[in-house]
Amino acid sequence: MRPSGRALNEMRTISIETNVVKHAEGSCLIRIGDTHVLCTASIEDRPPPFLKGTGLGWVTAEYGMLPRATNTRNRREAASGKQQGRTIEIQRLIGRALRAGVDRAALGERQIVVDCDVIQADGGTRCAAITGGWVALRLAANKLLASRLILSDPITDHIAAVSCGIYGGQPVLDLEYVEDSAAGTDGNFVLTGSGALVEVQMSAEGAAFSRSEMLQLLDHAESGIKQLVSAQKTAIS
Amino acid sequence: MRPSGRALNEMRTISIETNVVKHAEGSCLIRIGDTHVLCTASIEDRPPPFLKGTGLGWVTAEYGMLPRATNTRNRREAASGKQQGRTIEIQRLIGRALRAGVDRAALGERQIVVDCDVIQADGGTRCAAITGGWVALRLAANKLLASRLILSDPITDHIAAVSCGIYGGQPVLDLEYVEDSAAGTDGNFVLTGSGALVEVQMSAEGAAFSRSEMLQLLDHAESGIKQLVSAQKTAIS
Amino acid sequence: MRPSGRALNEMRTISIETNVVKHAEGSCLIRIGDTHVLCTASIEDRPPPFLKGTGLGWVTAEYGMLPRATNTRNRREAASGKQQGRTIEIQRLIGRALRAGVDRAALGERQIVVDCDVIQADGGTRCAAITGGWVALRLAANKLLASRLILSDPITDHIAAVSCGIYGGQPVLDLEYVEDSAAGTDGNFVLTGSGALVEVQMSAEGAAFSRSEMLQLLDHAESGIKQLVSAQKTAIS
Amino acid sequence: MRPSGRALNEMRTISIETNVVKHAEGSCLIRIGDTHVLCTASIEDRPPPFLKGTGLGWVTAEYGMLPRATNTRNRREAASGKQQGRTIEIQRLIGRALRAGVDRAALGERQIVVDCDVIQADGGTRCAAITGGWVALRLAANKLLASRLILSDPITDHIAAVSCGIYGGQPVLDLEYVEDSAAGTDGNFVLTGSGALVEVQMSAEGAAFSRSEMLQLLDHAESGIKQLVSAQKTAIS
Amino acid sequence: MRPSGRALNEMRTISIETNVVKHAEGSCLIRIGDTHVLCTASIEDRPPPFLKGTGLGWVTAEYGMLPRATNTRNRREAASGKQQGRTIEIQRLIGRALRAGVDRAALGERQIVVDCDVIQADGGTRCAAITGGWVALRLAANKLLASRLILSDPITDHIAAVSCGIYGGQPVLDLEYVEDSAAGTDGNFVLTGSGALVEVQMSAEGAAFSRSEMLQLLDHAESGIKQLVSAQKTAIS
Amino acid sequence: MRPSGRALNEMRTISIETNVVKHAEGSCLIRIGDTHVLCTASIEDRPPPFLKGTGLGWVTAEYGMLPRATNTRNRREAASGKQQGRTIEIQRLIGRALRAGVDRAALGERQIVVDCDVIQADGGTRCAAITGGWVALRLAANKLLASRLILSDPITDHIAAVSCGIYGGQPVLDLEYVEDSAAGTDGNFVLTGSGALVEVQMSAEGAAFSRSEMLQLLDHAESGIKQLVSAQKTAIS
Repeated sequence: MRPSGRALNEMRTISIETNVVKHAEGSCLIRIGDTHVLCTASIEDRPPPFLKGTGLGWVTAEYGMLPRATNTRNRREAASGKQQGRTIEIQRLIGRALRAGVDRAALGERQIVVDCDVIQADGGTRCAAITGGWVALRLAANKLLASRLILSDPITDHIAAVSCGIYGGQPVLDLEYVEDSAAGTDGNFVLTGSGALVEVQMSAEGAAFSRSEMLQLLDHAESGIKQLVSAQKTAIS
Repeated sequence: MRPSGRALNEMRTISIETNVVKHAEGSCLIRIGDTHVLCTASIEDRPPPFLKGTGLGWVTAEYGMLPRATNTRNRREAASGKQQGRTIEIQRLIGRALRAGVDRAALGERQIVVDCDVIQADGGTRCAAITGGWVALRLAANKLLASRLILSDPITDHIAAVSCGIYGGQPVLDLEYVEDSAAGTDGNFVLTGSGALVEVQMSAEGAAFSRSEMLQLLDHAESGIKQLVSAQKTAIS
Repeated sequence: MRPSGRALNEMRTISIETNVVKHAEGSCLIRIGDTHVLCTASIEDRPPPFLKGTGLGWVTAEYGMLPRATNTRNRREAASGKQQGRTIEIQRLIGRALRAGVDRAALGERQIVVDCDVIQADGGTRCAAITGGWVALRLAANKLLASRLILSDPITDHIAAVSCGIYGGQPVLDLEYVEDSAAGTDGNFVLTGSGALVEVQMSAEGAAFSRSEMLQLLDHAESGIKQLVSAQKTAIS
Repeated sequence: MRPSGRALNEMRTISIETNVVKHAEGSCLIRIGDTHVLCTASIEDRPPPFLKGTGLGWVTAEYGMLPRATNTRNRREAASGKQQGRTIEIQRLIGRALRAGVDRAALGERQIVVDCDVIQADGGTRCAAITGGWVALRLAANKLLASRLILSDPITDHIAAVSCGIYGGQPVLDLEYVEDSAAGTDGNFVLTGSGALVEVQMSAEGAAFSRSEMLQLLDHAESGIKQLVSAQKTAIS
Repeated sequence: MRPSGRALNEMRTISIETNVVKHAEGSCLIRIGDTHVLCTASIEDRPPPFLKGTGLGWVTAEYGMLPRATNTRNRREAASGKQQGRTIEIQRLIGRALRAGVDRAALGERQIVVDCDVIQADGGTRCAAITGGWVALRLAANKLLASRLILSDPITDHIAAVSCGIYGGQPVLDLEYVEDSAAGTDGNFVLTGSGALVEVQMSAEGAAFSRSEMLQLLDHAESGIKQLVSAQKTAIS
Repeated sequence: MRPSGRALNEMRTISIETNVVKHAEGSCLIRIGDTHVLCTASIEDRPPPFLKGTGLGWVTAEYGMLPRATNTRNRREAASGKQQGRTIEIQRLIGRALRAGVDRAALGERQIVVDCDVIQADGGTRCAAITGGWVALRLAANKLLASRLILSDPITDHIAAVSCGIYGGQPVLDLEYVEDSAAGTDGNFVLTGSGALVEVQMSAEGAAFSRSEMLQLLDHAESGIKQLVSAQKTAIS
């Protein structure tokens, strides 16, 4: 019934390749099916100005999509002179999500910038960016620990994300593009490794949804997140 | 326990004054406690380009905040040359939320632009904008119906929004600013008049939240929305 | 003969409601007929950089118009990414006009920003902004005096403004929109409470005007300013 | 008493050299003392969109200042990405002023763009731009007439401008930079060749001014304009 | 003597992997040592406006660098709101270079956009972008031919590029970053498959160079281009 | 055979008038035939931030073209909000070229900004800007030496530039606009007074060129540069 033949609660193939960019303190290429996102983490010695003198650090994210990551070419945001609303919304979400797994006092007065650039898009790019961004962040934190610039681990838990939606009247896990564009309700769920909720964003442009549909999607999300966290563990080990 | 002395599930005072701007096809000034938002709806004869020839209409929203709506003055976005990420995120949400209550075929090839400008802010401005924006939209649609430019009502249901959050360890309804800035988890809920869910956006920067906390907030939201919808009904009657 | 039936030298109804925004140090909503402008004054501890170390303060203004303040919706300047030439010209005028009534040494090294936002427009918005902006400024200065942050009053006189023009061949006072758009010559006059001139801006796109017409408009302006200053006095008392 | 030793009502040396740029339909280099402005007029076949189908033409102006036209280098507006408020205000004034001497029906559906670029600045650049811009416009109109693209002259009268101000307590004509920066009141006067008024812009940042001072400045302006119009006549003959 | 131990006329390892992005009509990942550039070619049905009705097509290029492609993170151009001068210069070069190998009449009225995004940078990114961009272009042209949208091949010859420079007083081929940043003279050479010159850009910030040094660099370039063209042939076969 | 009747290796008339802008530390108006460029040099007390504390100075350049310097009016870059790619490319070239003749340690921690503004264009504006820019720079350096702010001359040699190209199948020197727009290959050559090469930029959009054509153009360039350096010497003596 799903275009890919997947079961309602079946994730696409997950692959996380680490250390793909030699300059970055942490990096990975995450592939969720045909969605490929390159994530790098860059450590900066100074925190953003609003944190100067507080002893706290910061984690922020930027998101981009290569012009031909999609079926038809998108205008390059650098050339058009501004980031689209969608881009800004996504990168704010990634930053908030990753910070939920960070002890900012342990990080100290520095900033880690996580860049998530979509090489190829097939639905779920923001979720892949969060899941892969966490791996890059984890690897950068390892470098800080190894160099003894910080002494206690600033990463408090895994952070991973997955999309779910009502497709063809059924709750399905990990929407690919053709499902996403046809879905009545569409949700993104960010959870910690221990299963607590960090972000829930559910949206219905067409038909409104019920409380029970919401809970069915959450069930799917919890099962998907378990697989993503497991893939993160394999990648960083 | 709440700074205002309100009960956990108690809304602030709701007031909706209609037809406050003589030029607009629909308008209201909505006050949710000390949060005051001016909402206008403007009918444009032509739909956005991507809908030309489809027979469908569009509803979109723009959001702004006067520089001194807040405790300290904010830089005027028109002067700084761009809308902040927060602004863009909010106006996309308002547009999506309102479209969930619109039959775009009944609207026909035209666009209604809903402008929501915050005169005074004390938490929950995006929710007030959605609730008040719907009233402006409803009044503009009435004008289209009265002029017989359209024959069937494009408004399919009420749309209203409220924020809830975990404040001081307790789920509370309709956060004002001091609660909002201290809340661990913060959520915005958009529902239809018949109680179906349109948008759920829950976010935890500090502590993650549980499924049961999510449901408690949703309970609060449902009760708040009922009062908001009732105020909408009084306003437009 | 005038569309409103007013006499040639008759002002529209003037109303000034103070303290309309709880956060601002000074604020008012000024209504000149159907032109409604919300004015707030914000005190900033630091002067602009070019005054650092001089002992002098600064008063500046910003002007905006809500998108649907006018008969047809205007594009939101924050969304288009820049302020129009008209906006910039107006806010420079408001700032210059208000500074003419300020003792900048008495103000000390701080800045007061006066924001004038047009809620509803029917001609004469810049003049209403100056007249109302002065009230907001006066109230903010009162707050500085009351808190003993400054000891001598920085406000040296009232500042008020009115437009006059040649309409239907006759000099008329306080143009409303339909008159303004048909006027051959159009002038804005800013005067002090004691009747001295601060700004005179007269302009003829169509027919040039004579010295005697200029003086007739000035006569009208002087009489209008007296009523505006009287309304200011009532408002702040 | 004046830094240059000029009498109160004495203009600086006026020089207008025509046809200084081979590509432009009309051009001149106007020198008012040490203020040098290059003015070109460019004929465009099409009017601006808002005049399509009206049979009317348009005259507009753009103003710029080379970075080192002034005593200390100004940032290049093309590099900073926007025109300053002062620039926008000036070019709007030049356009309005020139249009006051144009029969837009005789011009027909075309546009003439007058570019005024300040090569060297010593006060009064906007007035020099108007006076020189008129010469460039006149020459371009001559070309239209000579080519029989239009049959009746669209130029109805000379347009010229001069600044006057209260300097050292005295009304003086044609302020140079050191006078301008010290003047209490500063005015720009645009008149037609027949002595009618087109624009009066008087401004007092410091001390307010009286009606009689206003008239003294106007007297000066009228005498200066006569000399400027005479120089225009010589230049185009 | 070279940091890498390479001979003066020795290229780095060349690798070109094709069809790396499923959506693009042509794509490759080119690796020249540690410089990795992702190149995609996108076919657009319409030519740029200036070619409408001419029967000719166009090839253009855009260039970008992921923020952490370099040793320290670069600001994302989409976030800063404009492309740097260096970016603009490079993408103009890539476009000109590729057009030199295209028969624009055979291409017909369509446009091919070649996007070159640097994943990892170690010197010579613009040359890698040209060499890889040609492969993406070749593959896209093959698709047009296969679909019989065009009947004769618009690609007239290979286009490839390499950098050479004076490093440590010696002419060297294919500079990597540490060489590039220390080189006195630095040149980029674009040649066709048959060895004709398309672009020569030589530049000396420090010491000027002689005609004989110029020719030595050109000798190196010719030998490097042969290897690059050979790698292109292997990649597309 | 050339439109102007010039010999293949014949320069246009060269004229360099110095000290044309009274405020600038150095200035000239250079005329190469009908190409006229105004060049000013401005001394700034502080170097750019990246040189603070290094003891080194900087020379940079900005380039502009008045809107009607060309046959049809160009849009003013200040009004369009950004500099075109061509402008950015040219001003980067001018800066690099001039720095090749500067001893930055002798200059000390200060910056000289060279502004090159094209008054009238007829091909070769970037080359005229470099040649005239050097004269302005030389005069500004003289002022620094005369005031004893620096003690040893920071100017190490003349810098001049000329364009050459293949026009009608023949190598020609100093292309004017009609030649430039028809040339198959087009090159810009920057040399020092002693004949060493600083920049070579050759480009073929249409037909590729050979090594021997490259050398023929270089021969022409060397002969043109001699005449330009000679004109520089006359101008500054």
